[in-house]
Amino acid sequence: MSIFAHAREFSLIQSCFGVLNWDQETHLPPDAAAYRATQLAWLASRAHELATSNTWKNALESAESSNPGDNPIHTANLRELRRSFNRAALLPTELVVRESSANSLAKHAWADARKHSHFPTFAPHLETLLALAREKTELWGYPNEPYDALLEGYEHGISTANVANLFNAIRPELREIAARAVETSAARAPQLPPGPYPTATQQSLNRQIAESIGFDFHAGRIDTTNHPFCTTLGPRDVRLTTRFNEADFTSSLFGVLHECGHGIYEQGLPLTDFGLPSGTSASLGIHESQSRLMENHVGRSRSFWNRWYPVAQQLFPQLAGFSLDHFMDYVWRSSFSPIRVEADESTYDLHILLRFDLERRMLNGTLAVADVPDAWNDGFHELFGFFPENDQVGCLQDIHWSMGGLGYFATYTLGNINAAQLFAAARENPTVASAIDQANYAPLLAWLRLSVHTHGATLSPSDLIQQATGKPPSTQAYLSHLKSRIL
Amino acid sequence: MSIFAHAREFSLIQSCFGVLNWDQETHLPPDAAAYRATQLAWLASRAHELATSNTWKNALESAESSNPGDNPIHTANLRELRRSFNRAALLPTELVVRESSANSLAKHAWADARKHSHFPTFAPHLETLLALAREKTELWGYPNEPYDALLEGYEHGISTANVANLFNAIRPELREIAARAVETSAARAPQLPPGPYPTATQQSLNRQIAESIGFDFHAGRIDTTNHPFCTTLGPRDVRLTTRFNEADFTSSLFGVLHECGHGIYEQGLPLTDFGLPSGTSASLGIHESQSRLMENHVGRSRSFWNRWYPVAQQLFPQLAGFSLDHFMDYVWRSSFSPIRVEADESTYDLHILLRFDLERRMLNGTLAVADVPDAWNDGFHELFGFFPENDQVGCLQDIHWSMGGLGYFATYTLGNINAAQLFAAARENPTVASAIDQANYAPLLAWLRLSVHTHGATLSPSDLIQQATGKPPSTQAYLSHLKSRIL
Repeated sequence: MSIFAHAREFSLIQSCFGVLNWDQETHLPPDAAAYRATQLAWLASRAHELATSNTWKNALESAESSNPGDNPIHTANLRELRRSFNRAALLPTELVVRESSANSLAKHAWADARKHSHFPTFAPHLETLLALAREKTELWGYPNEPYDALLEGYEHGISTANVANLFNAIRPELREIAARAVETSAARAPQLPPGPYPTATQQSLNRQIAESIGFDFHAGRIDTTNHPFCTTLGPRDVRLTTRFNEADFTSSLFGVLHECGHGIYEQGLPLTDFGLPSGTSASLGIHESQSRLMENHVGRSRSFWNRWYPVAQQLFPQLAGFSLDHFMDYVWRSSFSPIRVEADESTYDLHILLRFDLERRMLNGTLAVADVPDAWNDGFHELFGFFPENDQVGCLQDIHWSMGGLGYFATYTLGNINAAQLFAAARENPTVASAIDQANYAPLLAWLRLSVHTHGATLSPSDLIQQATGKPPSTQAYLSHLKSRIL
Repeated sequence: MSIFAHAREFSLIQSCFGVLNWDQETHLPPDAAAYRATQLAWLASRAHELATSNTWKNALESAESSNPGDNPIHTANLRELRRSFNRAALLPTELVVRESSANSLAKHAWADARKHSHFPTFAPHLETLLALAREKTELWGYPNEPYDALLEGYEHGISTANVANLFNAIRPELREIAARAVETSAARAPQLPPGPYPTATQQSLNRQIAESIGFDFHAGRIDTTNHPFCTTLGPRDVRLTTRFNEADFTSSLFGVLHECGHGIYEQGLPLTDFGLPSGTSASLGIHESQSRLMENHVGRSRSFWNRWYPVAQQLFPQLAGFSLDHFMDYVWRSSFSPIRVEADESTYDLHILLRFDLERRMLNGTLAVADVPDAWNDGFHELFGFFPENDQVGCLQDIHWSMGGLGYFATYTLGNINAAQLFAAARENPTVASAIDQANYAPLLAWLRLSVHTHGATLSPSDLIQQATGKPPSTQAYLSHLKSRIL
């Protein structure tokens, strides 16, 4: 079997894992959780065994030695498969299974700890997951610090020092923007007319909007969960989830726009290359750029609501006497929240800076797990000027660590930066810009398909940005965008 | 690894298949169907490879040779694993994959053929599936006729000739019962007050009733599909589906009672033996006995409705002035329908007799696929006294053949017979009988757990019936039951 056939089989196993995981998040009866963890661990270990097998290694070597080098996509596929193999082969299957079990246990403990705002319930699990992460970074090796080895798995080609420099460079400006945004928003005290905004009506509006920006419901769907996410179960079979707040229809809508950005990217990857690097997303930072672009640059724009606000007014009678100007004040409102997922655009990245700093120190061994709550609270106070009320809305708020996702958070801010740079570049095309102003997103989608989606993972994230925008990655467009938001 | 560890892994792969299949039937977007078929075929071939591997064979032989023989369940497990292995090992994996693909294609073609009542659309697929079935029966071998080899897979220990003799013996009486039931029912012309019976209210009633007869919603769930079914995705993780008719709430309710019978059986199998024969259902004919028992002996009884009709009247105001007597006339109504799944108790088995006869002739080569529609219509006319209007309500009505399920139908009537015999035996216990009369099914459930569920597949179907009822399998209780239904 060729290495590409192997890669497709690997991806097929992962996609089966995806189906069982999606069912777990959306439909699994509580008493079925334990066996589901066993099923998922089995699939994970089959995938890992395959991707680290001698058959795989030999097929890869054979393809490499016979590569004529005249097809850049073929060459990129081999390069990326080699990178994945080298990384995977360093981890014993035993560790992968151990990690899968540790994650299952940690997820339950974290949910319990958060519910009761009791960090000690989660602490031993975080110890285990941190030890596992360190074990992996030692097996992988790293140029400067352990965090490098984790970041490489999410965002190839950028070092921890790069990210730290970037974050330090924008930190003062981000704090200033946030402070001004919160202040001007507070002066206007924006409010939405009271609910209920019925769930069924929200669903109908969400679906219309999702279709209008390009999500394909013939191949994908949207379901309801407590923790919104997006997952791909096969070529273009993309499952989004959302949750509803009957007091505020924009909460679910912006969530759907966000997940649709992820989903439209997945649906736009080269179809026949499913399972190959050329049919796979480039990185988490590029993935997040697609979701933030749809959520913030499309969904929070005045032109978007010029089109959709009258539709919302038809569906929700309480909006009848509420002007678009007041509604936009609400959409652009800003305030300091202790919770990342409730943060607005202007304050969001401060949450990421905090997490990046803590994770890095944990991995370097300069922050003990027991000291995480204090370090969190101090770091939060420094950035936001107040302390979180408790650990539930502090260091226990996010699911990521409990899933073993150390090193993940940084990609959210990278995604914000990429989104702004890509959106600005797209708008340089006059057809795209004029259609966007009419809330017609077909040309924007075509531009994204051409400049981002069609490349799969054949370009590194920074090369992709360079090629799509004509410039190296830069925070300029993002900072301008944030400033434009201040009321 | 021990043979039991292998068996559990096999079952785990099958359960992953089950999750993907359940998602296919309940949630899959249309454009995702092709890749899903690929995923399912991959899982099917992994399971088959494992169950026919040398590792499996050696582990089985080693367990057999070291079996001290002092534990009847252990011995039964080895006996059943040997039977499965001998059967599976005769089929090459290539054939299993070919069959999986043929089924996927045939299912689509059948749906299309049925929709347009156009048998030629389905005929070439039926040819392929029949050829595959024959290929398998030749690989397996059979004592007298090919149908034997298929039946053995569904209902171990009964020959085609046994079934034919049984069916021929009850055929005249079944026809007479059906004719009388239809005639007396027609005289009463029972009707249900007009709908709508809102779906959400039906769901609430269904759930109350499902819980009251013993379905465990902590481990299982009920969803909505066009083709109701029951599947097990892990220990006690049983997923039922139903469909709703807002003109008749009893349609979904009896469907749920039926699927609950299957589901309660699955949930009652020995939990820690999941994946072993002792944790697996005994046969299709025993499985169907559990669904028919709940649907017909419990759900269509007067005592059941003594309890639940007042609840239904509360939920559906149009029932307020409609007496329980009239409602029972409706529940017990009988008529000749061309459609099996719409048939009532008194006419149901005639549909099975027809299919059994045709399948047997197809497998023996005395009925060509092209002649199936005519043979169907003639056979139907002989049993029912009229011709189906077209193939849509004739030979194209059932999904079974398109799934490769030749030899399956006979087990429905075996299930009906078993259900009556088991229910009569359970009622011989005074605690069970008196509770049933009060619509309290906990003692009945305990009796079924003890007499049927707890044995898994360690007894042959006929031994299980003998042990549970103290008598060999017999049609006596079933014929009495059917006669008691005539108004």
